[in-house]
Amino acid sequence: MRFEEAYSGNVFIKSGSDYDEADAVIYGMPMDWTVSWRPGSRFGPGRIREASIGLEEYSPYLDRELDDIRYFDAGDIPLPFGNAQRSLDLIGGFVRRILSDGKIPAGMGGEHLVSLPVMQEVAADNPDLAVIHIDAHTDLRTDYEGEPLSHSTPIRKIAEQIGPRNVYSFGIRSGMKEEFEWARENGMHLSKFDVLEPLREVLPALAGRPVYVTIDIDVLDPAHAPGTGTVDCGGITSRELLASIHEIARSDVRVAGFDLVEVAPVFDPSEQTVNTASKLFREMLLGFVK
Amino acid sequence: MRFEEAYSGNVFIKSGSDYDEADAVIYGMPMDWTVSWRPGSRFGPGRIREASIGLEEYSPYLDRELDDIRYFDAGDIPLPFGNAQRSLDLIGGFVRRILSDGKIPAGMGGEHLVSLPVMQEVAADNPDLAVIHIDAHTDLRTDYEGEPLSHSTPIRKIAEQIGPRNVYSFGIRSGMKEEFEWARENGMHLSKFDVLEPLREVLPALAGRPVYVTIDIDVLDPAHAPGTGTVDCGGITSRELLASIHEIARSDVRVAGFDLVEVAPVFDPSEQTVNTASKLFREMLLGFVK
Amino acid sequence: MRFEEAYSGNVFIKSGSDYDEADAVIYGMPMDWTVSWRPGSRFGPGRIREASIGLEEYSPYLDRELDDIRYFDAGDIPLPFGNAQRSLDLIGGFVRRILSDGKIPAGMGGEHLVSLPVMQEVAADNPDLAVIHIDAHTDLRTDYEGEPLSHSTPIRKIAEQIGPRNVYSFGIRSGMKEEFEWARENGMHLSKFDVLEPLREVLPALAGRPVYVTIDIDVLDPAHAPGTGTVDCGGITSRELLASIHEIARSDVRVAGFDLVEVAPVFDPSEQTVNTASKLFREMLLGFVK
Amino acid sequence: MRFEEAYSGNVFIKSGSDYDEADAVIYGMPMDWTVSWRPGSRFGPGRIREASIGLEEYSPYLDRELDDIRYFDAGDIPLPFGNAQRSLDLIGGFVRRILSDGKIPAGMGGEHLVSLPVMQEVAADNPDLAVIHIDAHTDLRTDYEGEPLSHSTPIRKIAEQIGPRNVYSFGIRSGMKEEFEWARENGMHLSKFDVLEPLREVLPALAGRPVYVTIDIDVLDPAHAPGTGTVDCGGITSRELLASIHEIARSDVRVAGFDLVEVAPVFDPSEQTVNTASKLFREMLLGFVK
Amino acid sequence: MRFEEAYSGNVFIKSGSDYDEADAVIYGMPMDWTVSWRPGSRFGPGRIREASIGLEEYSPYLDRELDDIRYFDAGDIPLPFGNAQRSLDLIGGFVRRILSDGKIPAGMGGEHLVSLPVMQEVAADNPDLAVIHIDAHTDLRTDYEGEPLSHSTPIRKIAEQIGPRNVYSFGIRSGMKEEFEWARENGMHLSKFDVLEPLREVLPALAGRPVYVTIDIDVLDPAHAPGTGTVDCGGITSRELLASIHEIARSDVRVAGFDLVEVAPVFDPSEQTVNTASKLFREMLLGFVK
Amino acid sequence: MRFEEAYSGNVFIKSGSDYDEADAVIYGMPMDWTVSWRPGSRFGPGRIREASIGLEEYSPYLDRELDDIRYFDAGDIPLPFGNAQRSLDLIGGFVRRILSDGKIPAGMGGEHLVSLPVMQEVAADNPDLAVIHIDAHTDLRTDYEGEPLSHSTPIRKIAEQIGPRNVYSFGIRSGMKEEFEWARENGMHLSKFDVLEPLREVLPALAGRPVYVTIDIDVLDPAHAPGTGTVDCGGITSRELLASIHEIARSDVRVAGFDLVEVAPVFDPSEQTVNTASKLFREMLLGFVK
Repeated sequence: MRFEEAYSGNVFIKSGSDYDEADAVIYGMPMDWTVSWRPGSRFGPGRIREASIGLEEYSPYLDRELDDIRYFDAGDIPLPFGNAQRSLDLIGGFVRRILSDGKIPAGMGGEHLVSLPVMQEVAADNPDLAVIHIDAHTDLRTDYEGEPLSHSTPIRKIAEQIGPRNVYSFGIRSGMKEEFEWARENGMHLSKFDVLEPLREVLPALAGRPVYVTIDIDVLDPAHAPGTGTVDCGGITSRELLASIHEIARSDVRVAGFDLVEVAPVFDPSEQTVNTASKLFREMLLGFVK
Repeated sequence: MRFEEAYSGNVFIKSGSDYDEADAVIYGMPMDWTVSWRPGSRFGPGRIREASIGLEEYSPYLDRELDDIRYFDAGDIPLPFGNAQRSLDLIGGFVRRILSDGKIPAGMGGEHLVSLPVMQEVAADNPDLAVIHIDAHTDLRTDYEGEPLSHSTPIRKIAEQIGPRNVYSFGIRSGMKEEFEWARENGMHLSKFDVLEPLREVLPALAGRPVYVTIDIDVLDPAHAPGTGTVDCGGITSRELLASIHEIARSDVRVAGFDLVEVAPVFDPSEQTVNTASKLFREMLLGFVK
Repeated sequence: MRFEEAYSGNVFIKSGSDYDEADAVIYGMPMDWTVSWRPGSRFGPGRIREASIGLEEYSPYLDRELDDIRYFDAGDIPLPFGNAQRSLDLIGGFVRRILSDGKIPAGMGGEHLVSLPVMQEVAADNPDLAVIHIDAHTDLRTDYEGEPLSHSTPIRKIAEQIGPRNVYSFGIRSGMKEEFEWARENGMHLSKFDVLEPLREVLPALAGRPVYVTIDIDVLDPAHAPGTGTVDCGGITSRELLASIHEIARSDVRVAGFDLVEVAPVFDPSEQTVNTASKLFREMLLGFVK
Repeated sequence: MRFEEAYSGNVFIKSGSDYDEADAVIYGMPMDWTVSWRPGSRFGPGRIREASIGLEEYSPYLDRELDDIRYFDAGDIPLPFGNAQRSLDLIGGFVRRILSDGKIPAGMGGEHLVSLPVMQEVAADNPDLAVIHIDAHTDLRTDYEGEPLSHSTPIRKIAEQIGPRNVYSFGIRSGMKEEFEWARENGMHLSKFDVLEPLREVLPALAGRPVYVTIDIDVLDPAHAPGTGTVDCGGITSRELLASIHEIARSDVRVAGFDLVEVAPVFDPSEQTVNTASKLFREMLLGFVK
Repeated sequence: MRFEEAYSGNVFIKSGSDYDEADAVIYGMPMDWTVSWRPGSRFGPGRIREASIGLEEYSPYLDRELDDIRYFDAGDIPLPFGNAQRSLDLIGGFVRRILSDGKIPAGMGGEHLVSLPVMQEVAADNPDLAVIHIDAHTDLRTDYEGEPLSHSTPIRKIAEQIGPRNVYSFGIRSGMKEEFEWARENGMHLSKFDVLEPLREVLPALAGRPVYVTIDIDVLDPAHAPGTGTVDCGGITSRELLASIHEIARSDVRVAGFDLVEVAPVFDPSEQTVNTASKLFREMLLGFVK
Repeated sequence: MRFEEAYSGNVFIKSGSDYDEADAVIYGMPMDWTVSWRPGSRFGPGRIREASIGLEEYSPYLDRELDDIRYFDAGDIPLPFGNAQRSLDLIGGFVRRILSDGKIPAGMGGEHLVSLPVMQEVAADNPDLAVIHIDAHTDLRTDYEGEPLSHSTPIRKIAEQIGPRNVYSFGIRSGMKEEFEWARENGMHLSKFDVLEPLREVLPALAGRPVYVTIDIDVLDPAHAPGTGTVDCGGITSRELLASIHEIARSDVRVAGFDLVEVAPVFDPSEQTVNTASKLFREMLLGFVK
């Protein structure tokens, strides 16, 4: 027996061991220092990997197995605790290399602000990028009580970079009045409460375009994802979120990058949230990495 | 900086600081001594307030902000542990003053028996009062194993006072056979399992009347509210409950008082139940206080 | 006062005290040693009984009370920790006696493998037996990493005994590709994701036949049953599972035996799972024992 | 196999099945309605029994086995929720019968007030009774905010009945100033903070006398018993409490009755408190029942 | 009844309502953004206040009641999430006013870095200040992986300001080799593992001097305080920590300010840590505020 | 940046990456299928590694850093769920290779039975081996209710192989009467309750001999290690266990192998047990690997 056989390590299940051969690269962004309510999502990526060991490798939804695709789990990016700007810079640099190597970034958060530098880098390579944003919260603030670096702001910032008309938000059920107004006045797509139906309407118009898909786990009702920083009742079921991922997978968009964020394990002693996140991520891999 | 600015206190978010200017008065009723199963709801009101700090102040459901209404959080009524009768007397006296001042009582439980003296006082001021009761349980017992003061009895007692035909129960999925029969034989409205659809049918007939709305959090499926004394599967989603509150808010009834009861935080380490309760209560405030 | 009155014991609520007079016999199978992920279901039966004390005795779904039927809770079968084969032998022997006495076996797990010897004994007495299998997982493996005695195999083994065409699986959302293929190629009924609708289609064809109903609690979405070994998002609601039980109860099949398995209390500090399991079991008793 | 063999029931491990042959009778007092802080001890007795199944039957401290003594677990006394006076009456009546039959009452709480009627009945039969009270709290109030029936009062009430000089409190670290003064002025023995050493000093003087031993689990530091209503740091270790029980066991007092109260399982998801309580109770049985 | 009576608010028990009359001012510092391991201490102050309601007002250790002293709970200082420098500035400004008014600052954390600006302000007013630091960790780093603002650095920074010979650390059991060396080489007092005994030796030499007492709850063994960010076994008991506080209280130092930090409630579902912290804080108030 | 830098993996902190250069090899044995009470220790090794990331690398007890020694974490040995014999065979084979390569086996359990094949292999290479066994339980059964492969038997089995006089048990506080008698009659060293003092007495006599050190985490009081299968109050503190490890480290024995077993994370939502285990393991590495 070789030790390589004995040791499964703590990577997402069935991760390849060769970066060069991978079409997608998984990485964790263990940052939670700007959150306005309950911190803890820094431990999300590690626990999602741990839970992935319990997953089946086959998706009866997509009739596809993890062996059918090639990805490499690069582990967590080491981030400096409490320093938001430097953390974002490090994430951006990390993703820049992945993109330069022609691979798809597949991130796990961490708070939602971590998606910003990734989206910025992906947008730099894809001038016609659209963002599909699935979340309970608008995340359209310019700042949070004076702080421009906050988990309430990433969608606003990417919208300002790529143009609000290229941002499509789904499932939104919380935000300030001003955020909803800004979205409306600036031509952003913002679907309240639902995800699957409005997504079905929107996807045909995005055919052929590169999209970045960012999913905040709190779009799920707290019943389905209690392990997140800001739970907000009235959300969708895990079944609707799975179907939404499959809808994107079967559409004609090209997924240029994606992430799943805001998993905070400590708030869920049952561990259902990390188990759910690991299955969602499996479906995103199987559906988005061709 | 004044200390008044530094100190947010533990009141429901955006509570005004002046009782006299308020249209509604929030109060906690920290009593759980007659419950037949798991106690703990005495800590409900305090934790709902704590969780309210994490709420957005704007409702995208009702397009209304907390600044649009005026309410005052009076804190918890001090109640004598283990003495049900004296507790109910104290609650009744407390609510009497609120009503005398022309304000709407907005209570947080505590076990469901706390609603009884409130409903009795509101009924005294509103001879044509109807009660909208949203709950998993009939609460129509005359006593619980000999005890007339029990959390299983408040709806029976108010029905006897205002007439069963003026009581409308929704979402009921548990009770004794005799309770269901009593409801049927005495002309009470009792909708089993569902809330939103039967509410839509009933509300037009209540147009113009004063109603008291009492919501037992256990009408939600345990998936949505595990933090309550008596969980009972097969319940409604938080989404249906939110829609039901909005349905009442948009109807032509006049809400003369309301409460949300049976939140028992200790059974929910994820804290989703108190977060959900705080959002439900925000929507009740925004929808019921004009 | 007689001590018999004082002592309620830890039996399923309203259990009769006389084995001979019972039409059904409840028993626990506290085994969890072959599970591939999180163990703990050995404590399921005891906690389901404990939670049953909080149940109402009347079902408003079926309009029937526990006093209307006769059953005896025989407690847990003592099983040798870590020895799967001998455990299965003991369960088989226990059930053999129940069947010989003309009573219906009503089991509580424990891991799903415990259903195998029960189904085998029931099949021995009922040559035209059909199995209704409600579960998130196919359980159609021949072995788990070389082990033929595994909680991933019982449905395959009973299918090989009674013929795959007599096995009807519902709610399946996880398994290996090979398992789904085996089911399809061998004429098994396997409904993915849903339970109630496909059950409604299948039941008429089973009219008049004896059926064994085996329910793995993990068919429920983790939101509804976090307390189980292998949670798997995208499941059904407790409401759909209740309706499915009622659909079987109202059909023309004859339930020759049934069980509810894989309740692992430790993963659910809210105790919603054991409370839900106890209500499901009440409905199974009221619906399946005539 | 007889069903009697299969079914272990939920009694304290190795309980005999014949009341008449028992020297001691175990019973639960599931009452928690007068507590001033966190309720939940009504579920203590059931969970202590459940945990007892995991106990060894032999005590290496006392070199004695449970088979060496004879006791009968009578289950929980059914008590009316929320009615303190009637509950105490029922407990008193229950214990009266045990005493009339010449057996030792061995109670499990429930809140501390449940000890009062037991001590009163034992005192009625034993005019020279002394009470050994091991607790974090004085429990010497005359009332709690006006309520004479409160878990803060039982020691005061029994002291008034048998004389304060016959009450010996150990481990006390919380109470009102007035309570400590009352104890001092009335000749009660009250040892602050420690249990074992002062007990060693006191026991010789009690030689030959009947004693009632009442232990509130919260005498343990919260580290050793987090699962209780009112945790209070600075307490003793489980090791000191075990040694204290053994000290009494080896002394020349005659234990006429005993109890262990205030175990509230819900506050301890690790279940260490119920496991500890079950071992403490085993040692009390082995040490106090000759 | 006046509403003022009904509402106890969420202040530390028995807090006066008049800032001007207070000798000490309590305030929370809800910051946890630089922690290197588990965040969550931002919720410490609120939960310590909540738990304080369950406290007795009398200390049998010090024979003193809360009514004997005068303090005002000013609530939590609002801090900008994720911005460490601005948070420290705000804390410093807040404490500056308290000191200017001649009152003793009594802070609750929050991570340990919050103590730094307080100690700096207190040192500015007290040139001969000594710091008594009770902690599991040295906190003597110059930076944490490059970040100078980290919860691992406050003692180093204050030592550099007031001179290492004026800093006295107790209970230390974790740190980098370099930190221990720096302490030794620079004449700092650093007692490993123990608190009470070395404190007894040191206190006489500090007689007459102003001291700032900063206690990190993690000096307690995890058994006594699991609810903190970085648990580290081998710590002291709550009994030793109480005795240490009393030792300081009875010594001839003058406490010019004090705090208790690093209480992170989410890691302790039993709530023993917040209950312990509230009792420790009561003893600090009773012992340090003359 | 190289990916090797980004990825910390899930190995014990500071593990080297080269097996050949290591003096000791860490491995997990994720088996819990023969336990007689609460299973869950299969997840112990993974969580101990996760917690190790939060450790300091320096021991102020031993004045030694992890960089001073060389070890390699080989990950978990894949074991067949539910098959005890084959699992033991696989563990034995794994350890055989480590020993053949002249390295010290450093195992993490898993239930205590996993120590048996390791001790057997170490004994095969070291004819004069002594076993130091630190545990709450005797583990001297010949079988558990008929099962010879049980977590209650490993010390009996190794005692029979190397002779009972070469087995030294410490801290024992639970077992069957027969086990204590067997130990006494066969010349085994068995210290009840205490560890440090009897160890100090025994170690000089073992000078120069090879020893295998096996520590069951449940030797700690439940206060210090609630996350284990069979908690048993009256145990030692983590401080005593640390000192015991250091006592062995400073003695003249040669540690030929060691393990730490029975960590079951699910029973400890505070995670103090895995944190404690990781620090204990660090001290074992620093103390036992020269």
